[in-house]
Amino acid sequence: MTSPEPDFEAEAAWLSAVLTQEIPLGSAMALSIARLDAGGITLAVPLEPNVNDKGSAFGGAMASLMILAGWSLPRLLLRRHGLAADLVIGRCELRFVCPVYGPFQAECGWPERGAIDEFVANLQAGRRARLALTPEVLYQGDVAATLEARYAALPR
Amino acid sequence: MTSPEPDFEAEAAWLSAVLTQEIPLGSAMALSIARLDAGGITLAVPLEPNVNDKGSAFGGAMASLMILAGWSLPRLLLRRHGLAADLVIGRCELRFVCPVYGPFQAECGWPERGAIDEFVANLQAGRRARLALTPEVLYQGDVAATLEARYAALPR
Repeated sequence: MTSPEPDFEAEAAWLSAVLTQEIPLGSAMALSIARLDAGGITLAVPLEPNVNDKGSAFGGAMASLMILAGWSLPRLLLRRHGLAADLVIGRCELRFVCPVYGPFQAECGWPERGAIDEFVANLQAGRRARLALTPEVLYQGDVAATLEARYAALPR
Repeated sequence: MTSPEPDFEAEAAWLSAVLTQEIPLGSAMALSIARLDAGGITLAVPLEPNVNDKGSAFGGAMASLMILAGWSLPRLLLRRHGLAADLVIGRCELRFVCPVYGPFQAECGWPERGAIDEFVANLQAGRRARLALTPEVLYQGDVAATLEARYAALPR
């Protein structure tokens, strides 16, 4: 038995409001959702509001965009399953691979089905749940930065 | 023989312009330099522009403030010694320790004298130089997030 396909368009509209209205820095970065589908999510930003003094992308902007791309996926799982939990990010490893001189994206793929099912089942049982995600910054098709992050959901 | 004490007040004025005018996200975060002295640097921000959907500080804002606090120190070394080099951040480890519900700061201490001297000497000899720094986010006196970062300066 497979779950019905989520309404990605409605999810993207809702998520976009959260990312830019409830998180002011998302708006300052001029963030938009370039893709949300069964493969994952892609967030996009122009360079200008995210530039540094060298004319390349500010590391903090790349980190922020990856953190938000990763966070979006468990946040959507909570919403789909009507779960009340606080999502937090714990320890993560951040790598800056090469400089970015134009608009860039942060992409994050959905984890394996088993990890998703366990995440949801733990929360449904009132337990803390974890999800490991690895969003990346893409610039002109190349990986410019990576994040290995663990997100925890704490039932309210 | 000791070097004369740098003019921290003039340095802070110059650095503040870089952090908020040349890095637009610094301005969006309403960043200010709360302290620059022989001990290190403290950058401060209000919560409002850096908040997330839960009413606490957005992880990306904390990461950005720590990256900038760390970056400021080698940037000042380049300026003091008239060195032309590009400063980049490579791999780093980021830890979020506890949530932040108000104005917060990122603090970074100067590294040991020997590490500073080696950094400057390498650049003066035209070689790539590295500096390891560990900025932290402080909230009401407690450590709320930490960053272990390696900055590299590439001679131009």
